[in-house]
Amino acid sequence: MIPTFTIDAFHRGRFHVMQPKGGGHRSGVDAMLLASLVASDKSISVADLGSGAGAAGLAVAARLAKARVQLIEKSPLMADYARKTLALPENAFLAGRVEVIEADVALSGKPRVAAGLRDEIHDHVIMNPPFNDAADRRTPDALKAEAHAMTEDLFEAWIRTAGAIMKPGGQLSLIARPQSIVEIIEACGRRFGGLEITALHPRPDESATRILVTAVKGSRARLTFRAPFFVHGMDGHAFSGFVDDLNNGRAAYPRLSPKRNRSEA
Amino acid sequence: MIPTFTIDAFHRGRFHVMQPKGGGHRSGVDAMLLASLVASDKSISVADLGSGAGAAGLAVAARLAKARVQLIEKSPLMADYARKTLALPENAFLAGRVEVIEADVALSGKPRVAAGLRDEIHDHVIMNPPFNDAADRRTPDALKAEAHAMTEDLFEAWIRTAGAIMKPGGQLSLIARPQSIVEIIEACGRRFGGLEITALHPRPDESATRILVTAVKGSRARLTFRAPFFVHGMDGHAFSGFVDDLNNGRAAYPRLSPKRNRSEA
Repeated sequence: MIPTFTIDAFHRGRFHVMQPKGGGHRSGVDAMLLASLVASDKSISVADLGSGAGAAGLAVAARLAKARVQLIEKSPLMADYARKTLALPENAFLAGRVEVIEADVALSGKPRVAAGLRDEIHDHVIMNPPFNDAADRRTPDALKAEAHAMTEDLFEAWIRTAGAIMKPGGQLSLIARPQSIVEIIEACGRRFGGLEITALHPRPDESATRILVTAVKGSRARLTFRAPFFVHGMDGHAFSGFVDDLNNGRAAYPRLSPKRNRSEA
Repeated sequence: MIPTFTIDAFHRGRFHVMQPKGGGHRSGVDAMLLASLVASDKSISVADLGSGAGAAGLAVAARLAKARVQLIEKSPLMADYARKTLALPENAFLAGRVEVIEADVALSGKPRVAAGLRDEIHDHVIMNPPFNDAADRRTPDALKAEAHAMTEDLFEAWIRTAGAIMKPGGQLSLIARPQSIVEIIEACGRRFGGLEITALHPRPDESATRILVTAVKGSRARLTFRAPFFVHGMDGHAFSGFVDDLNNGRAAYPRLSPKRNRSEA
């Protein structure tokens, strides 16, 4: 019999995630790097938008003992995997601080609140929005406009929701492909400022494959391109030391600028 | 008597630029890096928008023996320095391939053509648009909106002109501050695609202070963040080898993707 799911260890076995095998998005390093952007010793409330089986949100909860996390996932299948993930005995140490909300991140207004996404309750919102690699490989003209519009709508809707459920001065964190930078900046618009962007390059001489972005709700600070990350050194395939620490939950990657709320802006 | 101008050597003395002393923008490394983005052995036509005394345009002409260059400068004072620069005996080897056009880059339509900026004649357009450091230092609220609008208008107007005077498939190259990324991307809009962005960091662990951007007229290719430049190594103040080569005209920094014109797009 072929297993339909796997149970994967993260943070060197500190927590586990049950996720479907084959088909659909499987969480890995992206989710761990995303989680590393949340840096706080306080009793914070964190929302993981489009959480899937919960890898990023659980990585926050695993590293930050005072963090409470909402996993927000539209797909009944993936929300079910998130619930099963929380029920794993290995995750008992954090399960009490994590809840699953089965809801569409793209909702707005009263339907959003009715779905359990309440206004201005979170200190941090993290997201690793889905993207369609297949659409990129098919050549442009036919699909391009459509795919582009889809992506634009996605970032607009997700970042709008992030702004709504976050406290003033709260931090948005996301990981995305470099090509999405325009949609992200436009969606941040006047909702978020003080963008800090870190490009992830597989190697020092290669183009970026991901960007890490943080922003602060209500900030008017200008954009910064932080020192880049190189995932691998020039020779060999091992993760560079700092990226390895982030991937394994041994370090956080805090913002350069402290959070600013409206009164400080 | 205090001199009102200086004559500065570039490319280790290969050419010289006469520029006013104190007050106003003085050209240096930024202009040399901008010039390095033009890479072609063919008989190309290049426009340097807002050329000042001509440092970037002359750096192109000095390195590329077949390049013809138009220096386009609004300020009568700076255009005069550009003409004096061309008249320097040290610059005789390139002066025949360079002309000065005293015109406002922000012109459009018939006035632009009448000022000497003809449609679709250039293979390359380069620009190092002015920015106001003082405005950034003064704290926001009062000046912010105004300064922001100014910058936005500037990139929109300059990139519109670049698109107009460039052949289809021609290359736009610019150097700017990282904060200007949004205005640049928006101004490129549907005129230019295939943006390649290189962040310049003073040191590997510091945030970027400049971005180099190239784009191709009519391209629909997606954006790339190229491997970053570190101007200095972690220790000491000498330029890193490659940046030093670019600064001294010993190397070009060509695009990753070959130029695409409309028919290839």
